Amino acid sequence: MIVFRTVAYRLVDKNLVLEKLRGVLDPEIGRSIVDLKMVRDISASDGNVYVKIALTVAHCPLAKTLQADVENAVRKLDDVRSVKVETTTMSRKELEELKQQLQPGAGPSTPSRGGPGVGPGIERLGKRGVRSIIAVISGKGGVGKSFVTSMLASVLKRSGYEVGVLDADLTGPSIAKVLGVSGKPYKSPGGGIVPLRTKTGIKVMSINLVLDDPSMPVVWRGPIVNSVIRQLYWDVDWGDLHYLLVDLPPGTSDAPLTVFQSLPLDGVIVVSSPQDLASMIVSKAVNMAKKMDVPILGLVENMSYLKCPGCGKTTNVFGESKGENLASSLGVSFLGAIPLDPAIARLSDEGKIEEYSNSIIEGIVNELRTRAAKQVEHLTQGLPIAWSIEP
Amino acid sequence: MIVFRTVAYRLVDKNLVLEKLRGVLDPEIGRSIVDLKMVRDISASDGNVYVKIALTVAHCPLAKTLQADVENAVRKLDDVRSVKVETTTMSRKELEELKQQLQPGAGPSTPSRGGPGVGPGIERLGKRGVRSIIAVISGKGGVGKSFVTSMLASVLKRSGYEVGVLDADLTGPSIAKVLGVSGKPYKSPGGGIVPLRTKTGIKVMSINLVLDDPSMPVVWRGPIVNSVIRQLYWDVDWGDLHYLLVDLPPGTSDAPLTVFQSLPLDGVIVVSSPQDLASMIVSKAVNMAKKMDVPILGLVENMSYLKCPGCGKTTNVFGESKGENLASSLGVSFLGAIPLDPAIARLSDEGKIEEYSNSIIEGIVNELRTRAAKQVEHLTQGLPIAWSIEP
Repeated sequence: MIVFRTVAYRLVDKNLVLEKLRGVLDPEIGRSIVDLKMVRDISASDGNVYVKIALTVAHCPLAKTLQADVENAVRKLDDVRSVKVETTTMSRKELEELKQQLQPGAGPSTPSRGGPGVGPGIERLGKRGVRSIIAVISGKGGVGKSFVTSMLASVLKRSGYEVGVLDADLTGPSIAKVLGVSGKPYKSPGGGIVPLRTKTGIKVMSINLVLDDPSMPVVWRGPIVNSVIRQLYWDVDWGDLHYLLVDLPPGTSDAPLTVFQSLPLDGVIVVSSPQDLASMIVSKAVNMAKKMDVPILGLVENMSYLKCPGCGKTTNVFGESKGENLASSLGVSFLGAIPLDPAIARLSDEGKIEEYSNSIIEGIVNELRTRAAKQVEHLTQGLPIAWSIEP
Repeated sequence: MIVFRTVAYRLVDKNLVLEKLRGVLDPEIGRSIVDLKMVRDISASDGNVYVKIALTVAHCPLAKTLQADVENAVRKLDDVRSVKVETTTMSRKELEELKQQLQPGAGPSTPSRGGPGVGPGIERLGKRGVRSIIAVISGKGGVGKSFVTSMLASVLKRSGYEVGVLDADLTGPSIAKVLGVSGKPYKSPGGGIVPLRTKTGIKVMSINLVLDDPSMPVVWRGPIVNSVIRQLYWDVDWGDLHYLLVDLPPGTSDAPLTVFQSLPLDGVIVVSSPQDLASMIVSKAVNMAKKMDVPILGLVENMSYLKCPGCGKTTNVFGESKGENLASSLGVSFLGAIPLDPAIARLSDEGKIEEYSNSIIEGIVNELRTRAAKQVEHLTQGLPIAWSIEP
């Protein structure tokens, strides 16, 4: 029997495309682009699909991310040969209507769980203009928390989000070096500390930016550590951010405890390495997060294996990968396994980790922003940041 | 011109051998074996050297180490073809004379800098029967402090020393797992906690041996951490030890500070890894040790490179080795660079790290015990432990 392939292409149905688009959320507003009336045109012929999307803001930094999301969603349909996504911009009238639609559910820009006090206390601080605060934890040192934190930040920034990184590791601060930030933060006329920015625009705050000599230790006992972490969050003018990532030190003592108790965390990402030894200590951190009622977004295994640059042979330098089993035994999602790569150490040492690219990390970020987008809708934390950036 | 090789052999002079032996210290007493009248016979013919040494105790566990030291010292002479070292035992009369000779300088077995108090204070605790207390520090997590600590312990134990390991990392305790120790420590009739022992007899104390579930975190703030570290040292009946190694957590906050302030440390060994990032944080720990006036015995670089098991190619997984430069810039001795090896993770996960062998680590231990032996003489901390073990 002969089947003409062209027959199959004709079967792509505009209604099926619309159905798929219903699952695509605006990366900022966290609602379906169909509900937001952003889908303006759909056509399909011979398996070639065309979609036109109306952006809320011209040159929105998230436009490319939204286009990619639309394309990926449509590609999931059978018989699709190509997808073309074009964008236009909403008219002023359309935008006003959308604002009206969103406004009722949206709270003021400085709402929060808990009071706004700062100091050595433990009461939870407010969220102000930050949408999602995510801590990267491990319990174990040296598994690559700072690498994962800065990669998540880099990929989110590349996707068009406003991102900040708070380095809560006061005694082993790595973030400023890995992200290539130096210089001293200054105080704004309003009194807040202005964080420094990386080449791509990630806002960074770390104790090492405040010290005169980054090789000098901060020999501080717990109460001072706690107070300083609270200040790095509250006294810093983070402005409007989609994501504030918090890099935690190893352990389950003062610094992590302060972050869990004082910062309004939306979730944590757990980093492990393949050693049994690491699993045991990572379990401690996960159990701590559970005790403190912080949602665990998932577990990433780092340093999973090394592919020899000479012969291509894979070596399990730290033992066989067991991230998936560990995640399932702890009852958390497994987000992926990142291999060892000498380029990581080199780019970290050169302060150029933003240049690193890895499909596994991109997958983790996609997972993360989908979850966060849903959460944003739930939290209804105000209007999209892009609206205030682009007047 | 014909030179008969046998002529050269005849040149080994008994006096030169004796001169070399003057540099060999009794591994326990820390004085020259010549001064201690332990050298009983020297003969040399045709480059074949024979030495007879009188041990203070028959079947002394350190006999083999002393024999190896004698052999290595004699081999440094030109024209030596072979070295044979035999041992005998001192007579009761000779031993009594030696005890008399040593006694005047030797203090009681429980002397100390500082008082004997325990609790959340910071006053320095006493040394009791422990000769050398050495902390392994890094500042940075995940560089292999616990691996280095347990390997030093294993090689020292193999050499015949009495060794204990105190795991001062309460939130990420690795020692019990790496050394394959499980079970609960019990209280002796005298009230002290009896540490557990590894297969080869190393005494071990770790918070994980006390917890009911090793995957549960200790979510403690500084003051409790401090009090528990002091108890792990003071409330434990360590008995007579040549070496107590203390494995520190990363950071420069409460736990390391307590160890520096409360324990009568004889020195620290610093562990780094090749990343610049690690160098920066390791520098913080070294500067902390300097501030606290603790002698720094030297720096070990771990994870220096990986030799591919497939093709033998060397990969600088974490960047090019820079331990030697780092040590020199910090003004401390460089002790050696240990390569990555998948066997390390495997043996650590199986609790069999005592079986691991590596010539670099053996070299580090030799350096360490030479320094410690000299220090023992200086401290004159009582009579050799072997004398009390072997009646």
